[in-house]
Amino acid sequence: MNAPLKVGVAGLGTVGVGVVKLLRAQAELLSQRCGRPLEVVAVSARERGRERGIDLSGLRWHDDAAALAADRDVEVVVELIGGEDGIAKAVADAAIANGKHLVTANKALIARHGTSLAVAAEAASVALQFEAAVAGGIPIVKALREGLSGNRITRVYGILNGTCNYILTAMQESGREFAEVLQEAQDLGYAEADPAFDIDGIDAAHKLAILTSLAYGCPVNFDAVHIEGIRHVSAIDIEFAAELGYRIKLLAIARPTEAGIEQRVHPCMVDRSTPIARVHGVFNAVVAEGDFVDRTVYEGRGAGEGPTASAVAADLVDIARGNRLPAFAVPAANLDPLPAAPMARHVGPYYIRLSVLDQPGVIADITAILRDDAISIESMLQRGRAPGEAVPVVLITHETQEAAMLQALEKIGALASVQEAPKLIRMEML
Amino acid sequence: MNAPLKVGVAGLGTVGVGVVKLLRAQAELLSQRCGRPLEVVAVSARERGRERGIDLSGLRWHDDAAALAADRDVEVVVELIGGEDGIAKAVADAAIANGKHLVTANKALIARHGTSLAVAAEAASVALQFEAAVAGGIPIVKALREGLSGNRITRVYGILNGTCNYILTAMQESGREFAEVLQEAQDLGYAEADPAFDIDGIDAAHKLAILTSLAYGCPVNFDAVHIEGIRHVSAIDIEFAAELGYRIKLLAIARPTEAGIEQRVHPCMVDRSTPIARVHGVFNAVVAEGDFVDRTVYEGRGAGEGPTASAVAADLVDIARGNRLPAFAVPAANLDPLPAAPMARHVGPYYIRLSVLDQPGVIADITAILRDDAISIESMLQRGRAPGEAVPVVLITHETQEAAMLQALEKIGALASVQEAPKLIRMEML
Repeated sequence: MNAPLKVGVAGLGTVGVGVVKLLRAQAELLSQRCGRPLEVVAVSARERGRERGIDLSGLRWHDDAAALAADRDVEVVVELIGGEDGIAKAVADAAIANGKHLVTANKALIARHGTSLAVAAEAASVALQFEAAVAGGIPIVKALREGLSGNRITRVYGILNGTCNYILTAMQESGREFAEVLQEAQDLGYAEADPAFDIDGIDAAHKLAILTSLAYGCPVNFDAVHIEGIRHVSAIDIEFAAELGYRIKLLAIARPTEAGIEQRVHPCMVDRSTPIARVHGVFNAVVAEGDFVDRTVYEGRGAGEGPTASAVAADLVDIARGNRLPAFAVPAANLDPLPAAPMARHVGPYYIRLSVLDQPGVIADITAILRDDAISIESMLQRGRAPGEAVPVVLITHETQEAAMLQALEKIGALASVQEAPKLIRMEML
Repeated sequence: MNAPLKVGVAGLGTVGVGVVKLLRAQAELLSQRCGRPLEVVAVSARERGRERGIDLSGLRWHDDAAALAADRDVEVVVELIGGEDGIAKAVADAAIANGKHLVTANKALIARHGTSLAVAAEAASVALQFEAAVAGGIPIVKALREGLSGNRITRVYGILNGTCNYILTAMQESGREFAEVLQEAQDLGYAEADPAFDIDGIDAAHKLAILTSLAYGCPVNFDAVHIEGIRHVSAIDIEFAAELGYRIKLLAIARPTEAGIEQRVHPCMVDRSTPIARVHGVFNAVVAEGDFVDRTVYEGRGAGEGPTASAVAADLVDIARGNRLPAFAVPAANLDPLPAAPMARHVGPYYIRLSVLDQPGVIADITAILRDDAISIESMLQRGRAPGEAVPVVLITHETQEAAMLQALEKIGALASVQEAPKLIRMEML
């Protein structure tokens, strides 16, 4: 039997415990698959005494995670602490500085520091892998880094946050409003007590920034991601979407455009017959489109102890087999700082919902503004009749540039007959 | 710049031409991704003079593909000739014997000779890769060999033949019978002039045998695959399926059971709300279920020049990056000859359609036979009333062993009131 690969696990929350469990439960299988055992030799966490449901005897304990990253007997550090800076960053730096391979599930860390970590890891001839950072158990990092590497990626997009997808699915199924469904999701443990990170789109944006770098071979550029969450999605928009043959999903989308690489996270109207429209509840899905392969779809659980541990194990198997993969699909020296497309230059169709007084001339005023900004309307839908009162009007535009759309909406919002700020949801042709 | 990886392409049909096109179109991209160029240096095909839409000047030409596999300047042989024996097998053997890496899209070759080729390749320290042999452009070989390697695979199944899925989709959408839709598929080029290989399930079975070996670390055992094609699927069964909330798909399924590894290809009733039920037309999809990752789904184009070339390129990138992967997810020496489960021991629910005389006592006779064989019925559906004439009766059973089911059907088929041989379609709980 060949020498084992010696693993140190920093962080023993749900995922850390899951990784230790997996490496033990599958010890024989992994040993067969890698031609050598994978052995956890050291762990680190904040509270030593806490009951975690796993036996830690025989493992070296480090109170200080950075000390684990310097442990001479550890060959791979698995960072499962979380957070973009602080101790997680210190552990990552220490692991590489000490010549150890680094595996992490930390999307914030990679979205913020992925490029510099990749450069450092290559200089130190160690692996940097983060399959678990995007879409949980779905091997999408591997797909982009290796499986689709013969393609120019023409677009990559996905449902990357299970909490948002759970909430939007529940809103669609029940007709209830966002706040009520969020409360229920919190009660059920599908949403955090402080849900901002998920529902405001930050988590999805971290993951998108990583996918973008993998797909386009550019440095990770989280700051260039346009981010909108789902707080402003109303039951009435979900209802209109259904009526028009669409679903509303929080999508994370990256694609090359004439203006540069576009990266955006926002609620999106998608045709209900597309694969992504049918991804329900806490599931994640990623669609990668390539010039040779055409459309490929990947679906699975995006979070949780088992799926995340599965992704970490895949990275460890790569390392145990002796494979060295460029962190972002190209050697760090080849990462090409492509320009970022400003959101104002985004082009696509829009769903616009207005609350207007039901009186003669209102629609004429609105359509005149759209005409003046060269925005053409594909369809219009008015719901109900209530002379002199506010009624909803929905407009679907043809392809329009975001800057023109926002300018027109400012003018429309200023009309006396328009009762609320216009509501905009982008549509994505899939 | 590092030294190029020198590639020889044996076979210049659609896929071979696609591979040459891809390697040229993406030369710069691949060079960035691999840190070295991928260069086609030699080709081989039957007819040198044929117009193929690609420039072959500057490439060494071999009339004899086995000579290409011995070309001293070639490092990787890409075998795209096809066929389980003959010249394809000779090229594969010669490539390995000459110390060259072997990439192939040939499912028949791998389904028949995969194990011995893997043993030979490992002994020669060369790679054996065949991403393009299963599900076209979908990187499912990589997912099973690497991405899901931390899991025990509890089941792997898929739609692996685009021709069959096209025909079943068209039958479902149009209500037409098999023969008519097959003719149309042939006219449109979606089915071969001799369609037996596809519609009788052989092609799907080749691919399944490969997936099974990857998932369970056992030698490829094509002969153990139970194979049924789609010729016997009738419009009326598709109609009943729809009425009951199902779709009929040709599935290829492998799973470990108490009786051994089950491998089967047959038409299957699947709940219409499942991801696999919604895979339409020529698309392929694979579902891999693991004990940690739960269900993962992969969908894309299962054939064609671009998708197949994409899969071949992924294998070449692995080799160019210097990664060595065990052909069937474990080193060949670790392949474990697991017992094959006989189909008679399969357990699952069944859809049974009978054509019975509409007269008193018939149903009592049938249900008595089922009771005697301890088969319990979940539901029964009789269509129409025509006293004294034949009417269709559909039975859905609870979980039943195949041997008992076949025994009961033999007795039922012998009843005077049963007008045609009973029709059986297995149901799969997804």
